[in-house]
Amino acid sequence: MHENRRDRVARQRGEHDVDAVLITNLVNVRYLTGFAASNAALIVGDQVTLVTDTRYAEAAAHQCADVHRTLDRDAAGGGVKAAAVRGVRRLGFEAANVSVKDFGRLSQIAGAVNVELVALEGIVEPMRSVKDATEIELLRTACEISERAYTRLLDDVHVGVTERWLAARLEFLMCDEGAECAGFPSIVAAGQSSAEPHHVPIDRPLERGDLLKCDFGARVQGYHADITRTVVLGEPAAWQREIYDVVAAAAQAGRAALEPGLDTTVIDQAARSVIVDAGFGEYFGHGIGHGIGLDIHEAPMMGTATAGTLAEGMTVTVEPGIYLPGRGGVRIEDSLVVTTDGSAALTTITRELQVVG
Amino acid sequence: MHENRRDRVARQRGEHDVDAVLITNLVNVRYLTGFAASNAALIVGDQVTLVTDTRYAEAAAHQCADVHRTLDRDAAGGGVKAAAVRGVRRLGFEAANVSVKDFGRLSQIAGAVNVELVALEGIVEPMRSVKDATEIELLRTACEISERAYTRLLDDVHVGVTERWLAARLEFLMCDEGAECAGFPSIVAAGQSSAEPHHVPIDRPLERGDLLKCDFGARVQGYHADITRTVVLGEPAAWQREIYDVVAAAAQAGRAALEPGLDTTVIDQAARSVIVDAGFGEYFGHGIGHGIGLDIHEAPMMGTATAGTLAEGMTVTVEPGIYLPGRGGVRIEDSLVVTTDGSAALTTITRELQVVG
Repeated sequence: MHENRRDRVARQRGEHDVDAVLITNLVNVRYLTGFAASNAALIVGDQVTLVTDTRYAEAAAHQCADVHRTLDRDAAGGGVKAAAVRGVRRLGFEAANVSVKDFGRLSQIAGAVNVELVALEGIVEPMRSVKDATEIELLRTACEISERAYTRLLDDVHVGVTERWLAARLEFLMCDEGAECAGFPSIVAAGQSSAEPHHVPIDRPLERGDLLKCDFGARVQGYHADITRTVVLGEPAAWQREIYDVVAAAAQAGRAALEPGLDTTVIDQAARSVIVDAGFGEYFGHGIGHGIGLDIHEAPMMGTATAGTLAEGMTVTVEPGIYLPGRGGVRIEDSLVVTTDGSAALTTITRELQVVG
Repeated sequence: MHENRRDRVARQRGEHDVDAVLITNLVNVRYLTGFAASNAALIVGDQVTLVTDTRYAEAAAHQCADVHRTLDRDAAGGGVKAAAVRGVRRLGFEAANVSVKDFGRLSQIAGAVNVELVALEGIVEPMRSVKDATEIELLRTACEISERAYTRLLDDVHVGVTERWLAARLEFLMCDEGAECAGFPSIVAAGQSSAEPHHVPIDRPLERGDLLKCDFGARVQGYHADITRTVVLGEPAAWQREIYDVVAAAAQAGRAALEPGLDTTVIDQAARSVIVDAGFGEYFGHGIGHGIGLDIHEAPMMGTATAGTLAEGMTVTVEPGIYLPGRGGVRIEDSLVVTTDGSAALTTITRELQVVG
């Protein structure tokens, strides 16, 4: 699997006129080797060389027995040197992942060994956007774990508990259910806070009548679930019910629109038009979704601007919301996989408005 | 406080011959404004402008009422435009934080508005390495929370519980004690795993006789505690007691060596020599410590190579270890603040070998 992915990188060398590619994005290194470390680089050319440092020497030998390995505290710099030794003259690098400062250092190293650096973009990310069956199963597992944890969390939702405590509890429950960790800081936002799309949980105790919005996801072998549900503490007010129903209809429309071959803007438009038509367009300020995988946000991004075409095997979120400043907000988010003729939801827990507490 | 910090950035413009500085490192943006977001940039010149996107508009208005604010999905690009509007002709940027790809985009934007970009390094980070009283109190609080959580965790340490469960439990307890979150993924490493300095917790159940090494820290308002303690499940074997005593003596020597004006290598040497003299030098492969603050690893780094001079108000870790492959390892790590004539420990929980389980 990893060898096949590396071959696909190697085959892109011709169109970019390079002899090898230096991969420094650690998530891409993991995708191409299975090796996860905080310091690593990969040379993909006629031969493949993994560079890491002494802390990871043993792990690399175990997990990447099939590639050449070398140790260098400066993994990227070590990669340039390793490429030169193998006769590479033009070496592509990931322009999105090398800082201007690091480029200066790598240029010096490259100059000393007669290697020319060539800025490349989008070598690995487009490959990653379409998942294979193994990846989809990992995402499905991550979603199931997330939903089991959330179901347990609802038992702990009462007037008086704080957003911050609920976030901590939710993250523990995801681990307890089998996650390696929470994939990102959980958003738990109640009352007025729920009107902030990206709220950091605070110590405010929940009150009767609060909307409670939880945006969270478990990570499993590096793969990220992403789900949002919104509930209400006690009977919903009319305005809460109204925006909930609009968001639920928009989410339904967005999910139903998913289909291979469509421009990503079509999905955004399908969901957004429901919200706009209901008169809440100005209160939905973000895009409809994004790809999920080894990163929590990855290709394809789905918003109002074109960002590509959907393909079978892509895993994406659909997450419309309405956020009324000073009052509260609702978001409903699901993770789905694009299938031959539509999509299949990886998150399936109820999307009806639940009354809790 | 934030205004004072921004003034110190502004005063560096002369030596770099720039009219303003574009800050894109989000931790530095937070340090200079108090504003924490996943998308933001700051222009520091004769005037100060914060750029973020619609998701954070409300939070920015609340938290940064004293600076100009503008919204742009491309925060850095928006910063370049905002600088041009204010008459900036030469705009410094953080070379360590702008990718080659982003530099290309920013160069285009800058060219269109007649702004010249100037690569700068080390504008904010040296300021951050010396903490003020408020920052030290936040770090002290983070350390206290971490220690209370760990003390509670020890009640849950028994034969049969897994590393992964303990890590999840420890992170919940830190939040329950008042942390905003765990500052970094907790290392819980038992038995042979304790011989890996950077172990990712696995599902192996603890066994009698295991060394149990926990490296963790709470985050409070962005500030990171960092502490490691090692205990033993049941009576320690002679070799466990031996390496523990050596590491404890090395840690003591390292802490005692801290003093303003010293080169950071002196601290490493003070602790390392204890381990080398005891015959375990080859089993201590990492540096003696690092600065802590808004990043878990920041200046000053303290290892065998020179990385600067200690100053009053720096907050650092001292963390020697001995790691015997296939057997087990011990690390004792404390967080401390450098004082006028030495140091004061922020982590104070016992460093005696505790028998648990």
